[in-house]
Amino acid sequence: MTNPDPSEADTLWAVADEMANAARDAILPHFRTMGLNADNKLAGGFDPVTVADRASETAMREVLARLRPDDGILGEEYGSIEGTSGLTWVLDPIDGTRSFISGTPTWTVLIALSNDTGPILGMIDQPYVGERFMGGLGKADWHGPHLSGALKAKGTTKLSDATLFTTFPEIGTDAERAAFQRVARDVKLTRYGCDCYAYALLAIGQIDLVIEAGLNAYDIQAPIAVIEAAGGVVTDWQGNSAHLGGRTLAAATPELHAAALERLNAA
Amino acid sequence: MTNPDPSEADTLWAVADEMANAARDAILPHFRTMGLNADNKLAGGFDPVTVADRASETAMREVLARLRPDDGILGEEYGSIEGTSGLTWVLDPIDGTRSFISGTPTWTVLIALSNDTGPILGMIDQPYVGERFMGGLGKADWHGPHLSGALKAKGTTKLSDATLFTTFPEIGTDAERAAFQRVARDVKLTRYGCDCYAYALLAIGQIDLVIEAGLNAYDIQAPIAVIEAAGGVVTDWQGNSAHLGGRTLAAATPELHAAALERLNAA
Repeated sequence: MTNPDPSEADTLWAVADEMANAARDAILPHFRTMGLNADNKLAGGFDPVTVADRASETAMREVLARLRPDDGILGEEYGSIEGTSGLTWVLDPIDGTRSFISGTPTWTVLIALSNDTGPILGMIDQPYVGERFMGGLGKADWHGPHLSGALKAKGTTKLSDATLFTTFPEIGTDAERAAFQRVARDVKLTRYGCDCYAYALLAIGQIDLVIEAGLNAYDIQAPIAVIEAAGGVVTDWQGNSAHLGGRTLAAATPELHAAALERLNAA
Repeated sequence: MTNPDPSEADTLWAVADEMANAARDAILPHFRTMGLNADNKLAGGFDPVTVADRASETAMREVLARLRPDDGILGEEYGSIEGTSGLTWVLDPIDGTRSFISGTPTWTVLIALSNDTGPILGMIDQPYVGERFMGGLGKADWHGPHLSGALKAKGTTKLSDATLFTTFPEIGTDAERAAFQRVARDVKLTRYGCDCYAYALLAIGQIDLVIEAGLNAYDIQAPIAVIEAAGGVVTDWQGNSAHLGGRTLAAATPELHAAALERLNAA
């Protein structure tokens, strides 16, 4: 297991900040331009979200080539580069492309730094709103346009007190939706459609549960680091590590996590 | 029918801006404070969203008492005041309280000015992001943190090309959900949970359809004015005026509206 020296944490966070700034500058010129192009395609046949997605990941990889050439990279758009440091940057250049193409301000840029046990640093960035959520390597902070503060999950322990977010009913198999519904019917409030922005809301104590399926490693590694830094719990639907993706369950407390896990597997 | 003199439009828009600014200043101190109060209640027994809702409407009514004492008021929290001018301000101090209590930046402040035929001015404001959408009395504009421009709905005419937003599955009767599903199964993409922010996305050409049920007059009057200023169409599910609330259908074009209306009534 490779762990950076604690004295290196500030350097690594500065790299993540520079990557997120580069991604922001690459993406924002394309956000909400869809309606401006009658056929929703730019020259070259790509739609704006594809152009923005690729420009974002390219911009982040340029920062890494310059500042962290020995680290590996796993990105949604351009695959893997093996590194020699034992550390890998895991990138989702735009999480929530359906949100992006709808103009909703809840898509995010996801940046994680992982060793062979999983993520040790995670950043969830929403550049249009101007919000950044950061957890790991001693940091548990967020800032936005009007507020900033520490990441801290709520103390909710019972399903009946919980607010649940999901990307269902848009995704998942029938069996996965049925499992989700067993949890949803017992919670206080269920909300839909926020993609990985929901994990940030959990990490700042606004909601209590996020349940999803069909995730990739680059979708979940940054949320894992952010939520763990906030005191929350993230696993797959069997209670094991979720850092390779698949079905994920994030909860504000271990008690709430156990209650949701039991319902997911009560078929 | 009372119509303000065209020379009065700037004055009325300045009043609406001042109301939205007052609402913003009343609300933002309460946004995302839920997790900070262990029992989710402030002193006095009200939760933060109730406090914010009331403070917002009170702040807007203070502006009207000072600047427009002869106009009527219809507000969610404090009911009706009859006016003598023939004009009524219709106020939803926080639309999307479920969004507000979840920390999502898609709740809005809704301000409309109506005569006896319906809304003639509408404003949808999202103060956390810093976005304002304004339609009616010669205006069709919006501005946000990185962008601004004209309101202009897309030219989408076919359901198969349309993005549909709704607050379903959270609301509605079984029959209403079935009607909604007849539309949803034919569109390109369905997204959930944006409340009245979705009407703003339609008015700036990002999405094509919004279908809802169970609305009140104060939920829909500002969206009607904003969408009509953008060239879109808003009616109830029978194709009649929607300004008293109930079941609403908003579409980017008359052709798309007709196609969705046919599906809603195809049972």
